[in-house]
Amino acid sequence: MKKIVLTGARGALGTSLRPALAGLADTLLSTDIQDAPDDLAPNETYVRADLARMDEVAPLLEGADVVVHFGARVDEAPFEELLGPNYIGAYNIWEAAHRHGLRRVVYASSIHAVGLCETASGIDTREPHRPDTFYGLAKCFAEDLGRMYWEKRGLEAVCLRILSCTPKPENLRALGTWLSHRDMVHLVERAVLAPTVGFTVAYGVSNNDRAPVSNHTVPFLGYRPQDNAEEYAAEIEAAAPEADPQDMGYTRLGGPFAKVRLGEGAVSLIKAMGKG
Amino acid sequence: MKKIVLTGARGALGTSLRPALAGLADTLLSTDIQDAPDDLAPNETYVRADLARMDEVAPLLEGADVVVHFGARVDEAPFEELLGPNYIGAYNIWEAAHRHGLRRVVYASSIHAVGLCETASGIDTREPHRPDTFYGLAKCFAEDLGRMYWEKRGLEAVCLRILSCTPKPENLRALGTWLSHRDMVHLVERAVLAPTVGFTVAYGVSNNDRAPVSNHTVPFLGYRPQDNAEEYAAEIEAAAPEADPQDMGYTRLGGPFAKVRLGEGAVSLIKAMGKG
Amino acid sequence: MKKIVLTGARGALGTSLRPALAGLADTLLSTDIQDAPDDLAPNETYVRADLARMDEVAPLLEGADVVVHFGARVDEAPFEELLGPNYIGAYNIWEAAHRHGLRRVVYASSIHAVGLCETASGIDTREPHRPDTFYGLAKCFAEDLGRMYWEKRGLEAVCLRILSCTPKPENLRALGTWLSHRDMVHLVERAVLAPTVGFTVAYGVSNNDRAPVSNHTVPFLGYRPQDNAEEYAAEIEAAAPEADPQDMGYTRLGGPFAKVRLGEGAVSLIKAMGKG
Amino acid sequence: MKKIVLTGARGALGTSLRPALAGLADTLLSTDIQDAPDDLAPNETYVRADLARMDEVAPLLEGADVVVHFGARVDEAPFEELLGPNYIGAYNIWEAAHRHGLRRVVYASSIHAVGLCETASGIDTREPHRPDTFYGLAKCFAEDLGRMYWEKRGLEAVCLRILSCTPKPENLRALGTWLSHRDMVHLVERAVLAPTVGFTVAYGVSNNDRAPVSNHTVPFLGYRPQDNAEEYAAEIEAAAPEADPQDMGYTRLGGPFAKVRLGEGAVSLIKAMGKG
Amino acid sequence: MKKIVLTGARGALGTSLRPALAGLADTLLSTDIQDAPDDLAPNETYVRADLARMDEVAPLLEGADVVVHFGARVDEAPFEELLGPNYIGAYNIWEAAHRHGLRRVVYASSIHAVGLCETASGIDTREPHRPDTFYGLAKCFAEDLGRMYWEKRGLEAVCLRILSCTPKPENLRALGTWLSHRDMVHLVERAVLAPTVGFTVAYGVSNNDRAPVSNHTVPFLGYRPQDNAEEYAAEIEAAAPEADPQDMGYTRLGGPFAKVRLGEGAVSLIKAMGKG
Amino acid sequence: MKKIVLTGARGALGTSLRPALAGLADTLLSTDIQDAPDDLAPNETYVRADLARMDEVAPLLEGADVVVHFGARVDEAPFEELLGPNYIGAYNIWEAAHRHGLRRVVYASSIHAVGLCETASGIDTREPHRPDTFYGLAKCFAEDLGRMYWEKRGLEAVCLRILSCTPKPENLRALGTWLSHRDMVHLVERAVLAPTVGFTVAYGVSNNDRAPVSNHTVPFLGYRPQDNAEEYAAEIEAAAPEADPQDMGYTRLGGPFAKVRLGEGAVSLIKAMGKG
Repeated sequence: MKKIVLTGARGALGTSLRPALAGLADTLLSTDIQDAPDDLAPNETYVRADLARMDEVAPLLEGADVVVHFGARVDEAPFEELLGPNYIGAYNIWEAAHRHGLRRVVYASSIHAVGLCETASGIDTREPHRPDTFYGLAKCFAEDLGRMYWEKRGLEAVCLRILSCTPKPENLRALGTWLSHRDMVHLVERAVLAPTVGFTVAYGVSNNDRAPVSNHTVPFLGYRPQDNAEEYAAEIEAAAPEADPQDMGYTRLGGPFAKVRLGEGAVSLIKAMGKG
Repeated sequence: MKKIVLTGARGALGTSLRPALAGLADTLLSTDIQDAPDDLAPNETYVRADLARMDEVAPLLEGADVVVHFGARVDEAPFEELLGPNYIGAYNIWEAAHRHGLRRVVYASSIHAVGLCETASGIDTREPHRPDTFYGLAKCFAEDLGRMYWEKRGLEAVCLRILSCTPKPENLRALGTWLSHRDMVHLVERAVLAPTVGFTVAYGVSNNDRAPVSNHTVPFLGYRPQDNAEEYAAEIEAAAPEADPQDMGYTRLGGPFAKVRLGEGAVSLIKAMGKG
Repeated sequence: MKKIVLTGARGALGTSLRPALAGLADTLLSTDIQDAPDDLAPNETYVRADLARMDEVAPLLEGADVVVHFGARVDEAPFEELLGPNYIGAYNIWEAAHRHGLRRVVYASSIHAVGLCETASGIDTREPHRPDTFYGLAKCFAEDLGRMYWEKRGLEAVCLRILSCTPKPENLRALGTWLSHRDMVHLVERAVLAPTVGFTVAYGVSNNDRAPVSNHTVPFLGYRPQDNAEEYAAEIEAAAPEADPQDMGYTRLGGPFAKVRLGEGAVSLIKAMGKG
Repeated sequence: MKKIVLTGARGALGTSLRPALAGLADTLLSTDIQDAPDDLAPNETYVRADLARMDEVAPLLEGADVVVHFGARVDEAPFEELLGPNYIGAYNIWEAAHRHGLRRVVYASSIHAVGLCETASGIDTREPHRPDTFYGLAKCFAEDLGRMYWEKRGLEAVCLRILSCTPKPENLRALGTWLSHRDMVHLVERAVLAPTVGFTVAYGVSNNDRAPVSNHTVPFLGYRPQDNAEEYAAEIEAAAPEADPQDMGYTRLGGPFAKVRLGEGAVSLIKAMGKG
Repeated sequence: MKKIVLTGARGALGTSLRPALAGLADTLLSTDIQDAPDDLAPNETYVRADLARMDEVAPLLEGADVVVHFGARVDEAPFEELLGPNYIGAYNIWEAAHRHGLRRVVYASSIHAVGLCETASGIDTREPHRPDTFYGLAKCFAEDLGRMYWEKRGLEAVCLRILSCTPKPENLRALGTWLSHRDMVHLVERAVLAPTVGFTVAYGVSNNDRAPVSNHTVPFLGYRPQDNAEEYAAEIEAAAPEADPQDMGYTRLGGPFAKVRLGEGAVSLIKAMGKG
Repeated sequence: MKKIVLTGARGALGTSLRPALAGLADTLLSTDIQDAPDDLAPNETYVRADLARMDEVAPLLEGADVVVHFGARVDEAPFEELLGPNYIGAYNIWEAAHRHGLRRVVYASSIHAVGLCETASGIDTREPHRPDTFYGLAKCFAEDLGRMYWEKRGLEAVCLRILSCTPKPENLRALGTWLSHRDMVHLVERAVLAPTVGFTVAYGVSNNDRAPVSNHTVPFLGYRPQDNAEEYAAEIEAAAPEADPQDMGYTRLGGPFAKVRLGEGAVSLIKAMGKG
């Protein structure tokens, strides 16, 4: 593979991905809205760009095979604030990929595209959209767009509905939803390397005993996660507050996003769930 | 009912709806981006406004019970051109409806939200999204948004996936997809009047022998169409060109939109299908 | 057919059924816990009996071909009060039918076996149970029992999930759920006469425009209702109070039973819904 | 349309179809293994041919647009006897249609492709195969073959699963399964004329109250049957023997074919069902 | 957790559960209809009570968080004999749990709630009820009741459909259906500890190669069984009698219960299956 | 077990099966159209026979319990060439098994019965037929026939849809589709030994990370594959050519068969996929 483009390269997930993606292609072009990192790989270049501006984004994809699109504002916020980076940004990436003849988009979608589904329903990747926030709605928008670009223009896409990607599971909910960085990197590699994917949706979750969603429809990706949040279970359960049976932070897949008010940041809720 | 708001009031469908909606409430407020019509009903007022501007749209909904949102650019076009009226416009309507405490949004969605589904598959309203154009993608966006506003904020919505609403069926495809103006008005009335609807999707199609989609999931609306395109069948079939078995204009629900290039107007294709 | 047994013969539905069933067999044996009616058909006999007592019920079925089991306490009540007539009574009927070699049980089940399903979901007869009351739970019990008697003992059953059987529709909900007496009698006749039925569930609802459930799975019964609540729609809608979007009396199939407290009579709620 | 070919032209159904098909094309070429009929239409030619012989069949299709393939041995028989006309014959027709560039095959499939499905299950056209006889198995074979020719070679097909096509319904089962000759002709016309069909399966059944299968998946064909076996119900029910609840002649869709021994003619069983 | 109540504490499963449950709460109250065991844990009290009597059962639940309801008559028997312990007993537990404000019921349901499903169908927890015995019917009753108490009253429930819980697998069928005591205890612990469960059904089966049912819908419980009946396969297969292909003891999930006569004890059948 | 018959005994799979099957019965009768192998087991006899001739095949099954039917022409070819060995041959085996009272047929079906299904759809064994070749169509024919023989005559069958059974995975596609010889033998043993199977379809695939089909519906077989193509992944991926996103050799389950022209041998295509 000649060239991979990574957006959101300065984010927590992007930072984990950079060395791995650098190993998969002759060139890695990393981009984000922040300044360059100081640990670029030898075959990596970095360009600062605003996803919401086609004139900044499009040139970066020239000559690339695959774009790994992880750039976005990562929290619930008013629609107006997400419109640029999360909605228009996704359109810009797919459209630029089409114009430059890329083969595939690998996209950081999110569980919040189906965040209002019940945790106890055991869904798989065929579930219709049911977003919990404007943040999740942007993922629905991008997935539908990606499907259309595949069906009308032959541009492949893998949409990874990431659950909770953190160094280790941080609360009771994460015993089900945790995605280790190691498994996340492996999942993205498989999404880049699988020979043909058409339009594919997959869940980004580790091999947790309590994983609330199923990837049984996408075995062809070859994703086999190795980490299991269960090894943190005793510690977390001991510290966890008792859950209200009706608490949407537990009963819906979106967790804190499912219960937050539309347009309001969910970070404080997430933190609250992590404290015993 | 005290007040209904109608957007897209100067469009072909809006024009048919105005007298009917004026009969359902004390006041009808009609709006569009064009000048006022000259046949306002006695209890109807008209305000010119740009859907893409919240400051113009939001005040119109004050004191209303229901908004019938039919305003949009009605053709495929580049994403950038649809972003304002079709995407942001939909958000503005739902958000304004929420802020002003309306009970319900009745929305002109479209078959193009599922336009790449096969005509021969006989789908109903539970089919996941499969848009055929940026135009259809905007409908997917608004439907997902509408579901979320219902689930998170209790704002009801009926999304009417209109097929081909014209005075009479104009081509072979329309023998299945036609929605007469009479049936369209009846359908919108039912969507306004049904006692509770939660979040509902329904197809806007007449009682055609060849109707390619099913409303069997939404009997509670009480929609019973009276027109049937079949009475035009002999005339249309006699003049119709033979269809290519692979022609997406026939094999996919979206018809000409399913085969048009993304971002290009489909009007010329539609016209071509209507000529023998 | 030599003999039919009708339980609940003094109820509103039983009273409508008596003359019709008398016409289908050499003998009709009617029974209820009340005194005999004074309008017995020439070939009809009446025996007072308590459904909860096997020794009273079982002898009545001797020599019969079919039992039409409509006897039960018809309202929500504490479990303890329904146990005898609705639970044990159903067992007694099926067990007695088996012992006496009857061919078939026709049972007055109820929409309340699935009363917590959403009105807007458009279910058919394959929906799993979701009772709304102890009353509905008794119907679930009897349906499961009836299926087992068919599968283990070859005793046929048709369980008729009756919605709102009244002389005319009485409120907004009944525009969907009404079952006219004429259609009810026709449905029971079809359930008695259909050549083979195995274990069958069917909805008891007229040909209403707004009928919220579907019988598309049971065409073999030959049930074709003739009445349509829509002809009462204008009058009822004019007098109806506005519904709360979250009111389970409208949003769930069980209507007033879906919102009543478990164990409390729903009659007052039903009356309240009928008043404008 | 220039030319239609009809096989099985001397059979009961073929005889009904000949005048109608002659009206749909410049030329109708009729064929069967028997001698020519004496009532050929002016634009109709007749060629005697054995379906099992490619060298006899293939030349007939030259220059045709559509072949209506109704030729077959019409009863259960040992596999060896059906192999030629029903299995190899179907292959010969599709292969010849492909070689001569026809657009479409309209095929007389049969309910016996799913004849072991339960009558009381209310299936539609998506049901997997479940043949009841070698006769039905040949229909499964041809349907699978037809699907493959469409997907690999672009040859359209409509497989009509005919139930009981007789002048009038002849027994209790036929109150559900009857297909009048008028409706049969209309159905074949629609199968010939529908603009695009890809690979389609439809049931051949009249508008019977008791029709046990559903065409809700194929509205695009525009088939609207006009006859209803119910008008014969009183007469037939009066004369009908009581059915055994376990009798596969009633409980399975295939009726007498479902209960016949494999390889044995079912005609005597059919006659037995028709006698009171 | 302050207090857990265990019913059926003197049964084989209850005896395995007592030490484990004593470790999960400040207090364990064990109850059964027999005398007290002589090995009470330090924080365990025992009260003899008849499940069929509300006045005996209800007081035990006062102050409890969770009731683990394993008490019942465990064999097929006439309906009249099961009515008290298995039907009324289940109602008494849920009703008492509601009155005393418990959070959750963990219930020993059974495979016999779906015992007439085919072994070869690979069902999951969404399968509708299909009981094989009056014993299984009681489980259906309790599951439907449990769902209703959750939906109407917010009382959580986990219904564990236990297959064959024995020290080791005892016959050919048990190579699929075995649930080791270790896995059973783990499953109950997970059912007690999972943060929110709403109304959940799960199968109680070990990690057998041949497990005939699937828990893929309930990953959120965190149940990961460790035992596998396969290690007993060689020994059991060597001694097993050849199975009749139609033997419901093998072809239906309920095994011996599926073939026993309604109302007759199945113990002799179970023993017969275990002998070579 | 007294006697097993193996057809196709000289093929690659048959050769692997012979010693294993010889160990499962008193006698193994092996047959093929070639000469006898020179390594017969002590209890094995070999008879040369043509599957297409009933008079040669039928006598071999006398006295047998199970026939393992692996004989067929193994490549795409014109229908006329497959008719004898693959179609008539299958009929002959089932019919002879019935006549001689065998208990079960274990059949080498193939992924090509559903070869046109999309790789990315994650199907299980309930998927309707969708053959990719005349070779695959023969498998559909035999599966439908096998189901019918079970339902009408009580002859059990296990149809094993084998994917790519080779000594080791040979190309990119085989990283998903590989079935090791060891796992193949284990699968056939389980199909022979499972106590009751009715009519069962299972996929023949190893425990590959990328296995594109699921056996979750057939746990009762007790098949637990031990090999995983992933251990060959690095080597194969390094040498693999880049796949065209639209290449049916990757996007459809049938791989090279899905893209080959009907009637043309696929061997050259298979070889092409294996070369870097």
